[in-house]
Amino acid sequence: MEIYIVSDIGGTQMRVAAHNTEDLSRVNVKKIPTLGEGQTPTERLIQLIREVSGENRIRAIAVAAPGYLDPEKGIVYLAPNIPGWRNLNLRQHLYDVFRVPVYLGNDANMAALGEWKFGAGIHHRNLLYLTISTGIGSGVVLDNRLLLGENGLAAEFGHVTIDPEGPLCGCGHRGHLEAYASGTGITNFVRQQLSAGVRSSLSLDNNLSSKEINQAAQLGDSLAIQAFTRAGKYLGIAIANFLHMLNPSIVILGGGVTQAGDLLFTPMHQALQESIISPQYLKNLKITTAVLGDDVGLKGALALLITEFCQPIQNSSGS
Amino acid sequence: MEIYIVSDIGGTQMRVAAHNTEDLSRVNVKKIPTLGEGQTPTERLIQLIREVSGENRIRAIAVAAPGYLDPEKGIVYLAPNIPGWRNLNLRQHLYDVFRVPVYLGNDANMAALGEWKFGAGIHHRNLLYLTISTGIGSGVVLDNRLLLGENGLAAEFGHVTIDPEGPLCGCGHRGHLEAYASGTGITNFVRQQLSAGVRSSLSLDNNLSSKEINQAAQLGDSLAIQAFTRAGKYLGIAIANFLHMLNPSIVILGGGVTQAGDLLFTPMHQALQESIISPQYLKNLKITTAVLGDDVGLKGALALLITEFCQPIQNSSGS
Repeated sequence: MEIYIVSDIGGTQMRVAAHNTEDLSRVNVKKIPTLGEGQTPTERLIQLIREVSGENRIRAIAVAAPGYLDPEKGIVYLAPNIPGWRNLNLRQHLYDVFRVPVYLGNDANMAALGEWKFGAGIHHRNLLYLTISTGIGSGVVLDNRLLLGENGLAAEFGHVTIDPEGPLCGCGHRGHLEAYASGTGITNFVRQQLSAGVRSSLSLDNNLSSKEINQAAQLGDSLAIQAFTRAGKYLGIAIANFLHMLNPSIVILGGGVTQAGDLLFTPMHQALQESIISPQYLKNLKITTAVLGDDVGLKGALALLITEFCQPIQNSSGS
Repeated sequence: MEIYIVSDIGGTQMRVAAHNTEDLSRVNVKKIPTLGEGQTPTERLIQLIREVSGENRIRAIAVAAPGYLDPEKGIVYLAPNIPGWRNLNLRQHLYDVFRVPVYLGNDANMAALGEWKFGAGIHHRNLLYLTISTGIGSGVVLDNRLLLGENGLAAEFGHVTIDPEGPLCGCGHRGHLEAYASGTGITNFVRQQLSAGVRSSLSLDNNLSSKEINQAAQLGDSLAIQAFTRAGKYLGIAIANFLHMLNPSIVILGGGVTQAGDLLFTPMHQALQESIISPQYLKNLKITTAVLGDDVGLKGALALLITEFCQPIQNSSGS
């Protein structure tokens, strides 16, 4: 059988799946830890691809990888959680072994592509995907094409300034969306309030996380509720900005922080309504949550293959 | 001869030009006031197109128009400075008279397309154009295609929040880029400082404008200098955000406020350097001023015709 190989590399685990090139059905999938004794992550990836492929003939490979990378050149500049993945020509490494076309994409971009092709974004030509967890990742599809920019560095929507005097972001700059609305931003706000003496069922320990804050909020803790209200407000302001800039027909929200549900979404919708410059941007706009779960990276890599490697195909709504 | 008709409609003047479809050379051009006794602006436009066309056969028409419009539907929703241009199906009106394909574009988008095809952006695939005058308009080309969004409402880069508690914008919201860095934003800041008793060679009269403030700054007035420094700083922060989101290879700045030159650009570059999350975004990035002047709308309409009406053609650098 002829197969496509798709892979999703994370800091903890790597997944590889094989799909029949004729009907795109998944014929095999495996997941292993990214790090292992006596092997580099790249060696582990190559071995996993061999295992998942078996006797089948590989036609093309697509890999979703974290960090800064250049999808056109196939180079991972820096994947902070993967030892040795710095200025790594991953495409060349895989091509040298398998001798087939190799495609590479940033994990958040691949997630956006996955949701667009197989998930919540089917039938949409213009899509904004935000994944809100420890940080904020994003991916954008415009007119049925992935937004990459000149060097594949586009779609860093977590790193837009909402307030130049705002809290520190993980990147070292102030007042980015990520510094307000990510799990880290929410946790930092609660820590700061606790340090200032605000009373709460939460306490200043090392395990404080947005998940724990969410649980406290669901039980009525007012500091915890305030933390999500604040995150939702800034998220709504940022989404209004993104609508003014991109005018998408769907915004898809994924990532662990969205588990907070209406605690986050109600203030988000309110701030969005207040911040939008014309109701036209909200007309027919769908705002929804991601549906693909842990599979999103593999599905995105498959979407990349069938939109880039095969002849470009339109989404179902394409004309 | 067979000709393309291109038109640029402003609140004060409308321009129409005719181009030979074979070599794209301009064979005629005329400019008249947009408003006139006993005729609607649409009637004046139709008459001007007839005059400029003469005996030639029109193959297609493209119009650059101000305000909110839907380029796909050909409808001007609202052009604030043109009486009667509200929910106007301009495409249908022109088609009913001339019976040729009619294209419509927002003036800032057309300016971006003009600079991309014929001006400062030649050879670039990913371009951000900002025109900074009374307000801030913008247009974006991504991968050699104009960014329009789902309903043609994209690229309102003047209306992104830089500080939710910031000064009022003309649109009624707070802290937008336009409220800081447009001519209006600069003038409002100076007015507010003068009202607060800050000493300056400028005075609180009705004629205070960014042009006058620029002249005072060139003569060393410290309030005037401060006004441009502040505008440049927020412009730099905003451009950093736009680079994170779009990763263009060129940023083109047009509009009267850019006449201030380094008064604006020096603080802009400094804030950009301070705000960018990775030097990769600035590598090979060109930041430059617009070159097409008053002709930019007509040139943009011509660019629209030859990229949309003719078979899509790539920019010179396209491969």
